[in-house]
Amino acid sequence: MRLLTNDDVSNLLTVEECIPVVERVFKEIENTQMPPKIYLDIPNGDFRAMPAVVSNTAGIKWCGFHLDETGTKRKGNAFSKVIINDVDSGDLLAIMDAEVLTATRTAAVTGVATRYMSPENARVAAFIGCGLQTSKQIQAVCAVRDIKRVNIFDLDRERMVELYNQMEDYKTEIHPCISLEECVVNADIVTTLTPSRQGYLDYHMLQNVCHINAVGADAKGKRELNANVLDKVGIIAYDEWEQCSHSGEIQYLEESTQCGVLLSLAHIVSGGFCRTDKTVFDATGLAIEDVAAARYIYDKL
Amino acid sequence: MRLLTNDDVSNLLTVEECIPVVERVFKEIENTQMPPKIYLDIPNGDFRAMPAVVSNTAGIKWCGFHLDETGTKRKGNAFSKVIINDVDSGDLLAIMDAEVLTATRTAAVTGVATRYMSPENARVAAFIGCGLQTSKQIQAVCAVRDIKRVNIFDLDRERMVELYNQMEDYKTEIHPCISLEECVVNADIVTTLTPSRQGYLDYHMLQNVCHINAVGADAKGKRELNANVLDKVGIIAYDEWEQCSHSGEIQYLEESTQCGVLLSLAHIVSGGFCRTDKTVFDATGLAIEDVAAARYIYDKL
Repeated sequence: MRLLTNDDVSNLLTVEECIPVVERVFKEIENTQMPPKIYLDIPNGDFRAMPAVVSNTAGIKWCGFHLDETGTKRKGNAFSKVIINDVDSGDLLAIMDAEVLTATRTAAVTGVATRYMSPENARVAAFIGCGLQTSKQIQAVCAVRDIKRVNIFDLDRERMVELYNQMEDYKTEIHPCISLEECVVNADIVTTLTPSRQGYLDYHMLQNVCHINAVGADAKGKRELNANVLDKVGIIAYDEWEQCSHSGEIQYLEESTQCGVLLSLAHIVSGGFCRTDKTVFDATGLAIEDVAAARYIYDKL
Repeated sequence: MRLLTNDDVSNLLTVEECIPVVERVFKEIENTQMPPKIYLDIPNGDFRAMPAVVSNTAGIKWCGFHLDETGTKRKGNAFSKVIINDVDSGDLLAIMDAEVLTATRTAAVTGVATRYMSPENARVAAFIGCGLQTSKQIQAVCAVRDIKRVNIFDLDRERMVELYNQMEDYKTEIHPCISLEECVVNADIVTTLTPSRQGYLDYHMLQNVCHINAVGADAKGKRELNANVLDKVGIIAYDEWEQCSHSGEIQYLEESTQCGVLLSLAHIVSGGFCRTDKTVFDATGLAIEDVAAARYIYDKL
């Protein structure tokens, strides 16, 4: 049994190599099992159990979030773990810190959706929210499209500057923006990464042809897209229907008077996709992604 | 974060000290949360996720069973783990091997039920099934009643002799029996510990006043008691209603033309119990027991 830290995971799994790993999960979705996440509510946050089987690997992520006295989300510190077992032998293979794993697989799924859904000639990519996951999300989008300009924006300027400094040497130039509008106005791909509880991205801000990765909303009450976005885009993809309709942007579908075609990412990666001008991918994060990424890491050891 | 092996758990937690730990869980059941176990089926067994919150501890047990090529249940080898976190801080406290923990807390719950439900002057205790958990079950019953004679029985004589040899120096004399009937005929307390899938313990084998701990049945299709036992005993207690009605002896209640009063163990330990001549405790094993026992161990470190 191997025990891996976040640093180990960081050294063993890049966003770029994780993209085909999670792509295969969605291509071979019939080889997976994933009961709904279980939530345990506590006064200042929650704990979540996310079990899944992917091909010959069974596993579970145990994670959650926790607000400190000031109401700030506590940064994960060896809090979140993934355990994986081999299905054929039953053996427990590894226990891994899951913070870096989660950030990496989440970005990789953005990469998969972007590869299949965004305009092939996309050159400008916008990222709203400059938290811990954003650098990996930038890497994911730039791995699948020939991006010439990356716009970033955060209401918290300090956090935006921090990300900018962190990515100073990145192959693509990063442009901090002074407003949300400036960030998205010319973007071919918009990725939203905030913990917002109200819509802020409006249909009228977007250019004619673009793809949106809506990553921030992953719990009831969280939301980044205004109702007119779901109303007017041609195709809305989701990672998993049940989860998205409770926790993702799709939870607000009933507010839409009309909406685009709804497709699963599994369907899209299996070839079931026609391009339209505006598309949305609604990502909530799946246990099958964690288990597949953890097994990939284990197999590299 | 502490990482504990089965040996560590064995050194840190006796059955005797675990009894008040699990007793408190049932006494303070309103301070717990326990969603139903999640099962992931695999071709040769299953994996189970068992999350729970007990007071200020959140945790999960990840376990299951796995049949090898010969169809034999694989002995757990660092397979089953418990993870616990502190609810107030969110911190991950420990990851423990869960095989010894499970055997100990299961025996401890038998101890609690036996203390509250069995005749106070019980002197003879019978144990059917001589597997890995039986020695701890003997310790549990002998911890709460002044037992003068322990009868054991197993269809597999070798296993019975092994248990006998293992407990040669135990404070109470152990009597291997040549038949089920011999084992239970004079028993004040009968504890059933087999993986049987059909009833074998019949009402007519039992003496007039006795208490049965039905521990073996913990999954759909498993069963140790004939229908006439549930039919005729005065009180049937269960550890948790949903789980017992799917996995315990209670799953066969509909076969009974009548049955005794049904009570939860939580109700019984809170004083809600009147003695009757024959009683059953139906144990399926709960995540709250694992989390409470793991926290107790952690607090001793």
